[in-house]
Amino acid sequence: MIKITFPDGAVREFQPGTSALDIAKTISEGLARKVLAAKINGEVWDAVRPIYTDSTLQLLTWNEAEGKSTFWHSSAHLMAEAVEAQFPGVKFWVGPPVEHGFYYDMDLGDRKITEEDLVVIEKKMSELAKQGNEYVRKEISKADAIKYFEEKGDEYKLDLLEHLEDGHITFYTQGGFTDLCRGPHIPQTGLIKAIKLTNIAGAYWKGDEKNKQLTWIYGITFPNQKELDEYLHMLEEAKKRDHRKLGKELGIFTFDDDIGPGLPLWMPNGAIVIEQLEKLAKETEEQAGYKRVVTPHIAKEALYLTSGHLPYYQDSMYPPMELDGTKYYLKAMNCPHHHKIFAAEPKSYKDLPYRLAEYGTCYRYEQSGELFGLMRVRCLHMNDAHIYCTKEQFFEEFKSVNEMYLKYFKIFGIEKYVMRLSLHDPAKLGKKYVDEPALWLETEAMVREVLIRTKTPFVEVEDEAAFYGPKIDVQIWSTIGREFTLATNQVDFAQGRRFNLEFTNKENAPEIPLIIHRAPLGTHERFIGFLLEHYAGKFPLWLAPLQVKILPISEKFMDYATRLLGDLRSAGMRAEIDSRPEKIGRKIRDTELLKVPYMLVIGEKEVNENMVAVRKHGKGDLGTKSISDFIRDIEIENREKLPL
Amino acid sequence: MIKITFPDGAVREFQPGTSALDIAKTISEGLARKVLAAKINGEVWDAVRPIYTDSTLQLLTWNEAEGKSTFWHSSAHLMAEAVEAQFPGVKFWVGPPVEHGFYYDMDLGDRKITEEDLVVIEKKMSELAKQGNEYVRKEISKADAIKYFEEKGDEYKLDLLEHLEDGHITFYTQGGFTDLCRGPHIPQTGLIKAIKLTNIAGAYWKGDEKNKQLTWIYGITFPNQKELDEYLHMLEEAKKRDHRKLGKELGIFTFDDDIGPGLPLWMPNGAIVIEQLEKLAKETEEQAGYKRVVTPHIAKEALYLTSGHLPYYQDSMYPPMELDGTKYYLKAMNCPHHHKIFAAEPKSYKDLPYRLAEYGTCYRYEQSGELFGLMRVRCLHMNDAHIYCTKEQFFEEFKSVNEMYLKYFKIFGIEKYVMRLSLHDPAKLGKKYVDEPALWLETEAMVREVLIRTKTPFVEVEDEAAFYGPKIDVQIWSTIGREFTLATNQVDFAQGRRFNLEFTNKENAPEIPLIIHRAPLGTHERFIGFLLEHYAGKFPLWLAPLQVKILPISEKFMDYATRLLGDLRSAGMRAEIDSRPEKIGRKIRDTELLKVPYMLVIGEKEVNENMVAVRKHGKGDLGTKSISDFIRDIEIENREKLPL
Repeated sequence: MIKITFPDGAVREFQPGTSALDIAKTISEGLARKVLAAKINGEVWDAVRPIYTDSTLQLLTWNEAEGKSTFWHSSAHLMAEAVEAQFPGVKFWVGPPVEHGFYYDMDLGDRKITEEDLVVIEKKMSELAKQGNEYVRKEISKADAIKYFEEKGDEYKLDLLEHLEDGHITFYTQGGFTDLCRGPHIPQTGLIKAIKLTNIAGAYWKGDEKNKQLTWIYGITFPNQKELDEYLHMLEEAKKRDHRKLGKELGIFTFDDDIGPGLPLWMPNGAIVIEQLEKLAKETEEQAGYKRVVTPHIAKEALYLTSGHLPYYQDSMYPPMELDGTKYYLKAMNCPHHHKIFAAEPKSYKDLPYRLAEYGTCYRYEQSGELFGLMRVRCLHMNDAHIYCTKEQFFEEFKSVNEMYLKYFKIFGIEKYVMRLSLHDPAKLGKKYVDEPALWLETEAMVREVLIRTKTPFVEVEDEAAFYGPKIDVQIWSTIGREFTLATNQVDFAQGRRFNLEFTNKENAPEIPLIIHRAPLGTHERFIGFLLEHYAGKFPLWLAPLQVKILPISEKFMDYATRLLGDLRSAGMRAEIDSRPEKIGRKIRDTELLKVPYMLVIGEKEVNENMVAVRKHGKGDLGTKSISDFIRDIEIENREKLPL
Repeated sequence: MIKITFPDGAVREFQPGTSALDIAKTISEGLARKVLAAKINGEVWDAVRPIYTDSTLQLLTWNEAEGKSTFWHSSAHLMAEAVEAQFPGVKFWVGPPVEHGFYYDMDLGDRKITEEDLVVIEKKMSELAKQGNEYVRKEISKADAIKYFEEKGDEYKLDLLEHLEDGHITFYTQGGFTDLCRGPHIPQTGLIKAIKLTNIAGAYWKGDEKNKQLTWIYGITFPNQKELDEYLHMLEEAKKRDHRKLGKELGIFTFDDDIGPGLPLWMPNGAIVIEQLEKLAKETEEQAGYKRVVTPHIAKEALYLTSGHLPYYQDSMYPPMELDGTKYYLKAMNCPHHHKIFAAEPKSYKDLPYRLAEYGTCYRYEQSGELFGLMRVRCLHMNDAHIYCTKEQFFEEFKSVNEMYLKYFKIFGIEKYVMRLSLHDPAKLGKKYVDEPALWLETEAMVREVLIRTKTPFVEVEDEAAFYGPKIDVQIWSTIGREFTLATNQVDFAQGRRFNLEFTNKENAPEIPLIIHRAPLGTHERFIGFLLEHYAGKFPLWLAPLQVKILPISEKFMDYATRLLGDLRSAGMRAEIDSRPEKIGRKIRDTELLKVPYMLVIGEKEVNENMVAVRKHGKGDLGTKSISDFIRDIEIENREKLPL
């Protein structure tokens, strides 16, 4: 008998040669139907592969990232089978799962594939899926594998085989299709219930233009039609909500070739959104006892050698400027500058916690191929702060930071979020991680406790901490269900020592503070990019660049409109008049496009009765109100940051 | 007879050989007593030098810069005479006037000069001054001049003579002292009524360490004792108000070797002052119809080639960073970035004036020897804006900008200021200046008219404009009478064309806008440096980092103090409690040092009567008030930005 250890620590005995799928069946048939693969001793296996030794086991379903990627990998094989059926003689290169779905690149000879072909292939895939063919794994010698593909005349797989070691080569076969493949795969094709081929692309084999051009087919599959429908809907919504498209339409930001890639210019409307976010952050941080500072965007090489950014982070930094024999770098992070401010005046335990905040602008080098709208940029306006505290203060401080995150999520209507707690690996202490085993366990436990006590959803990930302490990555989902990695929240034991930071403790002895690095709103770039999608450009009143547009029906109501404008501006609202000699219908349509929260239509009746006819964006006509009632209502909406 | 033309255009005839001093006497004896030198046909001459041709004449007194520098030049000679009397055998190198006073550097052999020696020399100078010796000019051949100094054994003057051309050599003699000197000088030593030698320094002859070390003696003189007393008082005050000293004491800013010279770190108190200034500027600019933008701190070389900063301004820029084969520069000015935002969307005349504002941070390379506290830095947070307007709009726009300057002067209690209007030189059109003769005259006239109409004190200076248009440099004086060059205000015809900026005019044709560059508050660095001196660190309430300090007389009043703190903070005031177990006298003294505008002393009586005992910085005890009265009063003071 072999011993199988489950994730909860339970151990059960099974016959040698039993598979993960067999084990799942002993738990429940329902569970077994969902099993896509299994993690055996930390390695992902076919669910049907026999187990012969004592092992740890984790069943992988659609809920696990590795379950999904196995599912998509198997879907790539299914697609290849369908393509081969349609285009005999096609040769395949590689077909991996990707973040959302899978692709396979292939040599179709002289044939050009079309959108119509995709529909046919999809249909064929469904047909083959319904056959419920098993994915059969077979170990094969290198010689036999070469023989197989030589006979098939497939130079691509022969090329792959060159780099593989004999004794580690496997074939996978489902239905009539056999592929050279490391696996693992799902048990059978019948699990693939919903299929969508999304894209065709072309690229030279191995990226070399001397080679043939291969055809890439992208697709995505799901275990049920509902999820596919939701996904397609999200794609469609995401397209409408594309922050690059909305950013241009709403005058939020622009790029310019002469400035440089990844360096957005914030237009007047974008600057208003920035200003509002900064105002919120400053007020929130002031209430939480933060002090603000302002630091330069550059510093000498020496600073980054002390912090360790050089050489470890050098690839992500802009190259140096050499001046008076000294190298200066654009800052990629604000922390070293803040440490210098902490150190500028002697500190005692009475000064702690000492919280320094700055909307510091950092510069990071991202490969130009990786730049993407506001999501991947080279200029980052960070909602940054560093908290210097004693070990005793750490728990409360970290809890307050966490609560600040939750407060922001509420303000922005972010309902789905997960904090990803990255822990150290004890085996790598002194190498990848600062060699402070007790401090690691202590702070990890404190961070975990904060998350549990505040009922914050979180997952734990081993061996992904920062080198100086445990780290939380915050993942949030927009209203249309797209995931964004927003910000990090880190504990730091190391920088305090590197910078000789200290405070005098109660025993009058010098002590090194712990440091919390935090940025709940991330960067303006990514956060505003997220908000554009999240709100589909329909910013709530407090964030809207223009809050109220006054639409006089004709020229003769301009006096009233102008007085109204004055009243609104005196009340601190961002308002404008549409004084164009256009029909009111046109004025309303144009203002709708700019997604201005409120329109006030002014005609004869409104002027006579000293009223305004209110239209709310997305809601339409709200009837008439007195000016003072309208102002009172929007003042409340604005102050309380009510959702649109 | 020769014709003498006076500055007002009047022409009078005089005998050939008459001197400026003679002419002054014909006007009034009082005036003649004040004449120090004269400008004859644009060249500064001795007032007693005979005039033989038709000439323009301007009498120079202590009120003219050139009058002062002549006075100080003559004082250097007077000092040399006194030194020679005291230390026979001394040899002199050069003795010019400087910004404030004069110096002479000399070879004293083995003698070391002391502070006591200075007193003796001062006394001797006064004695010689009272003799009223005339400064006598004598033209001399090079051969005779060499002979004179060879006999004297003065290798320094012989060195100077090497570089002088025969026929242009003059000696000046007053009393027993003769010097090789181009002049000019004041009529006689008796005009020098007040003398102070201020400093002794040493430096190698010609800056070469292989040479002998010369002794430099610095001094300053005045035509009356009162001005000297005022000057010494100002020096003493300036020392107390030194922004570097106050900046450290008040926690405003710091420098750090690892960050770099000229790159201030703004500490929490400094960041509050910055925040308040930005708030003022943003509110002011919003009311004036400016739109805010946010732009990166770097850009490609291409941008600065278009703007012309490269190569013309290259020496003042940080060196480039080379990335992906492209050079990136830190921005030294915000204008090119703003032009790109103007150009990002098509503009019509209806969009103009288009006013873009940003507290943009620029980086400029200043020689490390020239860096000085916040006054000369490499990182500049500029109160910048660019106004794009039509020619028709220019007058109103420029006037509004000028009024904004005046509004700020009033807020900051700047009573003495001068705008220096720099004009083009028609002879240099197409070389130093854009070749648009009509536009130059037109805009210069408009700028002049704005200054006249708004009754702004100004002076005109020829041939000092920017290459793209007339420029105003704003000079202000702090309360102790020190002068600061604060900001510039420029008209620009050239950048619009260089950047292909255009708008569609009423005739539906493309037209290039005029651009106004303006920065009324200059940079945070220089302006806060100025304010520290101007206020002697005693910021008015609205700018004070900490506005109210609550001083409970003992621990048992802490509850009351805490409630009071809550009330003050709710009212938006920056307040703190001094909760240390110190005597009240000590608490008051410590708070005085930090120049906190208000102290509220809390004892038995205040708690029982629900009052606060108010102390105002620099004014002392103001008696007791109810909490609500106190809050109401300081809210008014804060909102109205009343002076301290």
